[in-house]
Amino acid sequence: MSALPVVWSPDTRLHDPRHEVWVGVATTGTEVAARVDAILEALPDHPLVEATAHGDDALHTVHDPELVGFLATVHDRWLAGEYVELVGQDRVVPYFFPTPAMSAGIPLRDAPAVHALAGRFAYDTMTTVGPGTWAAVAAAADCALTAAELVADGTPAAYALSRPPGHHATPAGYGGSCYLNNAALAAQALRDRGRERVAVVDLDAHHGNGTQAIFWERGDVRYGSLHVDPAAGWFPHVLGYADETGDGDGAGATRNLPLPEGTGDRPWLDAVGDLAGWVAEAGCDALVVSLGVDAAAEDPESPLEVTADGYHGAGRLLGGLGLPSVVVQEGGYHLPSLGGLVAAYLDGHESA
Amino acid sequence: MSALPVVWSPDTRLHDPRHEVWVGVATTGTEVAARVDAILEALPDHPLVEATAHGDDALHTVHDPELVGFLATVHDRWLAGEYVELVGQDRVVPYFFPTPAMSAGIPLRDAPAVHALAGRFAYDTMTTVGPGTWAAVAAAADCALTAAELVADGTPAAYALSRPPGHHATPAGYGGSCYLNNAALAAQALRDRGRERVAVVDLDAHHGNGTQAIFWERGDVRYGSLHVDPAAGWFPHVLGYADETGDGDGAGATRNLPLPEGTGDRPWLDAVGDLAGWVAEAGCDALVVSLGVDAAAEDPESPLEVTADGYHGAGRLLGGLGLPSVVVQEGGYHLPSLGGLVAAYLDGHESA
Repeated sequence: MSALPVVWSPDTRLHDPRHEVWVGVATTGTEVAARVDAILEALPDHPLVEATAHGDDALHTVHDPELVGFLATVHDRWLAGEYVELVGQDRVVPYFFPTPAMSAGIPLRDAPAVHALAGRFAYDTMTTVGPGTWAAVAAAADCALTAAELVADGTPAAYALSRPPGHHATPAGYGGSCYLNNAALAAQALRDRGRERVAVVDLDAHHGNGTQAIFWERGDVRYGSLHVDPAAGWFPHVLGYADETGDGDGAGATRNLPLPEGTGDRPWLDAVGDLAGWVAEAGCDALVVSLGVDAAAEDPESPLEVTADGYHGAGRLLGGLGLPSVVVQEGGYHLPSLGGLVAAYLDGHESA
Repeated sequence: MSALPVVWSPDTRLHDPRHEVWVGVATTGTEVAARVDAILEALPDHPLVEATAHGDDALHTVHDPELVGFLATVHDRWLAGEYVELVGQDRVVPYFFPTPAMSAGIPLRDAPAVHALAGRFAYDTMTTVGPGTWAAVAAAADCALTAAELVADGTPAAYALSRPPGHHATPAGYGGSCYLNNAALAAQALRDRGRERVAVVDLDAHHGNGTQAIFWERGDVRYGSLHVDPAAGWFPHVLGYADETGDGDGAGATRNLPLPEGTGDRPWLDAVGDLAGWVAEAGCDALVVSLGVDAAAEDPESPLEVTADGYHGAGRLLGGLGLPSVVVQEGGYHLPSLGGLVAAYLDGHESA
């Protein structure tokens, strides 16, 4: 296989949060626009393809239209409110959340005020919305959709430089630095273009609760993930355990492999191989890889200790399945090594 | 009726949040310890009764033991975590919330890390837990419980200087500057001491979603509230509408009277009279008043424009029911006028 085309969009740089609000404190974020260029610079030999724009209907294939509409309009609504004047907050940061403990089973109305409504969609305070967020989020989705179309049209494999990432975005919610689920959109696009059974394999250091949720009750899209054990306290905190295996038509079509903190290449690759075998046995005819490279030892956001060799090996294992493949960027936050890790995976995948 | 006894506790001063986190910004809070003394100073002619300590079992009469246990221990758990070292946060402020959009119907585990677990119980970021919070919260509950015992034992009426307030605390959740539901505890204590049908009338400027939730499906405790219309954007944002009337055995036992912004004495007293009539018709044999005085024109937390005369009139209307009464402090944040408003209400109640 020749070098995978890299589907990208300059608009993915437009989301640039200065801060993430974590336990009430504005901390420096790591999901920054500079990630795009760190990756691009590491892939000089790959052909570049600019993503084409898709309308909201393409996003509704896996997301509640109310989430899409909210994300598309919320920053303008925020600026029309008093939040800048009152407290100097120019980004959408929720403070109120309609949790089960709050509602206690009583049906809730939507909050009329945008600062309270935001918590219906956002499930954390760190995933903020600024002036360029929607353009970047839509562009990230376009990267994944365009890559899926290339693959559906016969390209053996394509890489979507989607950013912000997507695998924590649920059907109707956003969080974990994710807004729309790029990988799920790619998987659905493959289904909608004739692939019968699609597998999503998630290499990100964190469980992709959003992708899991989107396909939880579906048998036609499998979701397998290896990630640092949420029982050790890691995001997404409340999901990602091995006994989560899907429900209804999707019973058995979800597979989670939580890994201990400190896991390095060998056991990590064993887990990748386990998922590759699971995909092969299921008779899938297309593959989406959620390529988070934050399992790397250098990464500030996870305690896994995978090397570039490990990512190269993962590429060989998943590329070796011989399936039409869309590789979608997820996390990975160590700017000096980020691009090299992505390049290592892609090199492994295309050389398998 | 002679001057109502004031049940208080010095421990209610121990919760003193410097900041509330609102839309990601640390803002100056208004639910401050100085409220206690502002009220005490305005009631020089009332006999003081110090609250007696009640154990956790008394709190479990209306609250999930897991909420009680969490509140009692969470600050120690927080200090044992890295939050002070990492970001300088010495109070419990959640950042992650297991909302319906997050879970998407998949059963969730509890988050192992306390910074993520907090959002199971807290439903906003402004209701923080510091070193003295639990002592004050327990003391506030003790004030309400002690006042209820006085009334159950024959005192015609008693006032509980409970603080922090309580009416936004649900069976298993805290928020809106409330941790445990003092008024609901008083109502339940009256029930447990032989009163057959208890009414809670909530004069606070905000809907008491917590009290509503606790008694939503019960016919033996009625809940009636007048408050600024949540449709105008006010807390608690998603509840407090007129069509919320209870369910199951509690169908018809909840009554909400949302009022427009700017509502002054006359229409406000009409609504109080409406609720008084509703209580009288229901044949209640005891009354709990959630005495928020934040409906006052001077108050920074609501747009209602009630005067001290209005609160005096409300006292006459509710005192005029002739029911054994526990008056429990809720909101009221304008320190210079707060005590006078409470005194006006109590004077009206006892002179009715």
